[in-house]
Amino acid sequence: MKHLRILLTGASGFIGRQALRRCVAEGHEVYAVSREAPSEPDGAFWISANLLDPADRRRIIEVAQPTHLLHLAWTTTHGAFWSALENIDWLSATLDLARIFAEFGGRRLVAAGTCWEYEVNASGNALPPKEHQLYAATKYACLVVLRQLAHKLGFGLAWGRVFFVYGEYEKPARLVPSVIKSLLAGEEARCTSGTQVRDFMHVRDLGNAFTKLLLSKCEGSFDLGSGEAVRIADLVGLLGALMDRGHLVRLGALPDRPGECPELVANVSRLHDELSFVPQYDLQNGLRETIAWWKYR
Amino acid sequence: MKHLRILLTGASGFIGRQALRRCVAEGHEVYAVSREAPSEPDGAFWISANLLDPADRRRIIEVAQPTHLLHLAWTTTHGAFWSALENIDWLSATLDLARIFAEFGGRRLVAAGTCWEYEVNASGNALPPKEHQLYAATKYACLVVLRQLAHKLGFGLAWGRVFFVYGEYEKPARLVPSVIKSLLAGEEARCTSGTQVRDFMHVRDLGNAFTKLLLSKCEGSFDLGSGEAVRIADLVGLLGALMDRGHLVRLGALPDRPGECPELVANVSRLHDELSFVPQYDLQNGLRETIAWWKYR
Repeated sequence: MKHLRILLTGASGFIGRQALRRCVAEGHEVYAVSREAPSEPDGAFWISANLLDPADRRRIIEVAQPTHLLHLAWTTTHGAFWSALENIDWLSATLDLARIFAEFGGRRLVAAGTCWEYEVNASGNALPPKEHQLYAATKYACLVVLRQLAHKLGFGLAWGRVFFVYGEYEKPARLVPSVIKSLLAGEEARCTSGTQVRDFMHVRDLGNAFTKLLLSKCEGSFDLGSGEAVRIADLVGLLGALMDRGHLVRLGALPDRPGECPELVANVSRLHDELSFVPQYDLQNGLRETIAWWKYR
Repeated sequence: MKHLRILLTGASGFIGRQALRRCVAEGHEVYAVSREAPSEPDGAFWISANLLDPADRRRIIEVAQPTHLLHLAWTTTHGAFWSALENIDWLSATLDLARIFAEFGGRRLVAAGTCWEYEVNASGNALPPKEHQLYAATKYACLVVLRQLAHKLGFGLAWGRVFFVYGEYEKPARLVPSVIKSLLAGEEARCTSGTQVRDFMHVRDLGNAFTKLLLSKCEGSFDLGSGEAVRIADLVGLLGALMDRGHLVRLGALPDRPGECPELVANVSRLHDELSFVPQYDLQNGLRETIAWWKYR
């Protein structure tokens, strides 16, 4: 398993930086793509490129000549990414990148999907579309086409569906960091009622899961999550308890968003049975480490 | 309903030329897009453009300023289109065209899907991909994204799934023309066993159905077919009978293709109930007219 040439896109992102660390630790030759140069070296070759530029796409494949491609880049601006038209550019760019990858002898591609794909299957005329689903729809469309492309061009393909992720370097405006930062500051953490049930995974586990999927021969789509159903309210309560500031947690202080999916939990049977992946963190340990990370920022 | 500005892509194609005729007959201002200039004028404004060129896409929308877009263009090279990588370019081009259309105030978009979409739904890990499904997968992916895009950008959307079409100007290598031409020449028509059940519609009916869908307010996907289950063997037999050359039909002379879908018939309930569409041709009349058309070519 030595000396694979891995191209990693989105390498400076929340999930990408963890996958990068693991790919390097596994002893492979890693080419890390990012729009900006990274702040620190870490055993990878960094390539600055804009994946939405066709010439850049070809250049990075020519430079890296990757055997393996872990494609995590996508538009991710907090909030806006759900309905950004840029999702369409990322769909087109991803399919083009896969084609160039295969042209240069690429053997295996792993890319990131999303748990929200389960909402946007368009067969029949089932559910009315929702604006925020443009993200999920382009991801799902990407999977539909990549499966055929992989078959035609002869590369291996796995698709890792991301659920709810937390941990170091998460964007401060998102749920876990915003609660931690409020409580650290001794301020109220104002939340919705938090009745939705979700599946949380520590970002380091997720980076490891993507890396293990990349280095395996498993084909098809995998839910990458913990498999554990956790109410948002219980997650926030646990943060309050771990920080000894439960009295500052204000569940129900913000209005619930209408039409939210009540439950979204990963089916981890393939992840466990076929990939034999075991997470390092349970929710309590993962949150504890995340709190510590924010404390010393 | 007067004076809609209709942009029609694929206007010189097999289906497009029929839709064009009908759009013009309905009294609308029709801008017909084709890669080559057409041989005859027919009440439409012709625009020569390559839809795979981003600048051309913008130019045709700027020129036509369409309120309605009937998008029939796609890669269609006989045989090769199933697995051509160009399908990916058409997916990207179609999504981009839709975006530009909306940007310039477009109100309603109708595009062509395919009955083969029913094979490529990728949720779960159901069926292994087949190379010929790249076409169907890109069409299906297009629908998945267009639904969300229509919702976000505020244009109406309908998707017409094409089944099996025959009639004037069909490519000679396809089933109906090749049998007719053989029998007209007094030669054997060598076919497979033809046990597959399909849904046949005359191309003029299909062009009318697309036009009616475009001019309606119906939303979502519609199977555009006759709803009648016909064995390929019976279709070929009917051609032989209508031409009085049944003795030249050789069913089973060619090997069956492995893994062919045994039955593919349109569900026409939406087409009938919501769009109130009634075809003009039954199979016998449609084939009779098609035979006559080939006789005097």
